[in-house]
Amino acid sequence: MKKALVIDIGGTKIYNTIINENGEIIAEIEKHSTPKTFAQIKSTLEEIVRKHENDVDVIGIATCGAVNNENTGILGSTGNIAAEYPTMDFQALSNKKVFVENDANAAAWAEHVIGASKGFPYSIMLTFGTGVGGGIILNNKLYKGKSGAAGEMHFKMYPDKRRKCTCGSWDCFEIYTSGTGLKITAEEMSGNPDITTYDVIEGKMTDIINRWQNDVLTGLIGLANLFDPDVIVLSGSLGEFLDAEYLEREVNKEIVTQPLKIRHASAGNYSGMIGAGLLALEAMKNNG
Amino acid sequence: MKKALVIDIGGTKIYNTIINENGEIIAEIEKHSTPKTFAQIKSTLEEIVRKHENDVDVIGIATCGAVNNENTGILGSTGNIAAEYPTMDFQALSNKKVFVENDANAAAWAEHVIGASKGFPYSIMLTFGTGVGGGIILNNKLYKGKSGAAGEMHFKMYPDKRRKCTCGSWDCFEIYTSGTGLKITAEEMSGNPDITTYDVIEGKMTDIINRWQNDVLTGLIGLANLFDPDVIVLSGSLGEFLDAEYLEREVNKEIVTQPLKIRHASAGNYSGMIGAGLLALEAMKNNG
Repeated sequence: MKKALVIDIGGTKIYNTIINENGEIIAEIEKHSTPKTFAQIKSTLEEIVRKHENDVDVIGIATCGAVNNENTGILGSTGNIAAEYPTMDFQALSNKKVFVENDANAAAWAEHVIGASKGFPYSIMLTFGTGVGGGIILNNKLYKGKSGAAGEMHFKMYPDKRRKCTCGSWDCFEIYTSGTGLKITAEEMSGNPDITTYDVIEGKMTDIINRWQNDVLTGLIGLANLFDPDVIVLSGSLGEFLDAEYLEREVNKEIVTQPLKIRHASAGNYSGMIGAGLLALEAMKNNG
Repeated sequence: MKKALVIDIGGTKIYNTIINENGEIIAEIEKHSTPKTFAQIKSTLEEIVRKHENDVDVIGIATCGAVNNENTGILGSTGNIAAEYPTMDFQALSNKKVFVENDANAAAWAEHVIGASKGFPYSIMLTFGTGVGGGIILNNKLYKGKSGAAGEMHFKMYPDKRRKCTCGSWDCFEIYTSGTGLKITAEEMSGNPDITTYDVIEGKMTDIINRWQNDVLTGLIGLANLFDPDVIVLSGSLGEFLDAEYLEREVNKEIVTQPLKIRHASAGNYSGMIGAGLLALEAMKNNG
């Protein structure tokens, strides 16, 4: 069975391991803090590749930032990682083929192949963490749009500029439903500027949680009417605190399209790496 | 060159004509008022088909309501047309192959083949009339979702129940940006319950038009970030009063995906019929 070295590059951590064609993790998971400079990130990646490339057939990378349709590099800026990071030449890291995909897209693909959306041609995965990531699968293919950047969960919750989003625009779904957004909602509702998402979740602050969940619901209804998917998958560190059963019932009451399922992710914490590896192995097979 | 009898079935009017493979109208355009009862609608369609079916190779129907992925019939309810209309067996109308598509999808396809989005693989068409219709083309194919109902422009403008939508839910894009929505906005802003969209447009009521256009802009930003399309096409009786140049500039300032074009439709008033005919002719060719 073919194997892929897989690397997950985020703003704070870099992980790597090896997976097989079944999406099974077959090596130790190594962790590194993401270095501050571009040169340091590059040399961390070079070291990981040098150590493992002879044991695998292909390299799959899940990264923060939008990835082009050729799966070779990053489009534009990517937030909290070294500013030159988008200029990275990933293929130059190895003589083995290197396949790059956005981390949320890669995780959505893992759910599609081995997780909560397995068997469904049309799915959307939402990852609720510090931000909100989105991965869209249409007719069993990852949907990337004209440039590779599709699936950005920056549609607006209000038309009249209330809350500035991290993207520079206003009132995006992300800035109401991410961890960052939940903290802002909690601050507004409690009047306490030091409140954390931990306080809200652990303290079972029902009013705040309900408001947050209603914001999530608002977005899910729109996505369901636009995409008519089989299933929406809820993922990320905050995703598990959403009530999938409640959301499924409420969404299906409101939509004009056909009923859909809302499910929690089930491909595990390393779904980004697993998805990137599965995509890399599949691309290798398709290219002979 | 092959020819298609094309019929556009709306809540108030039924049109028919004949088109060729270039999307050219090559017969008189006939108009009928949409009858009240299902039996009368059926016999109007039977009469149209009987009169023209021997002159064509295939029949293309553009209809109100969501159409299934087999392009044979209608899903669920369809608003202001006889309640039994969704049970219509379109293929029973003729021995020639009958191909059915939603009117907004069909019009989007006409724009893609001969109109404003020609040459672009990824486009979204929005039709601003009494309601708002949507047609989505991804990678040169009409996008219909799991059941055929995708592209419903019922994503929310507010999360907190301000304006009831005709779909039964609240605060959808449609109920702010359609003719119905513009009238409600005008009533709210002017305090005059008798104000019409005609008064607003002809009277150049800038404050109301700007509010409406900002609501449209709000939706376009979300669609651009979700779908990363090449172009969004503005159509329908109200679409021409939107400033495409302004909207393109503003959308491109706000999105996190790559720049897109905003254009007015150019396939003409009968783009629904033309698109249905082009789709029917193409389906016939693909099925041998």
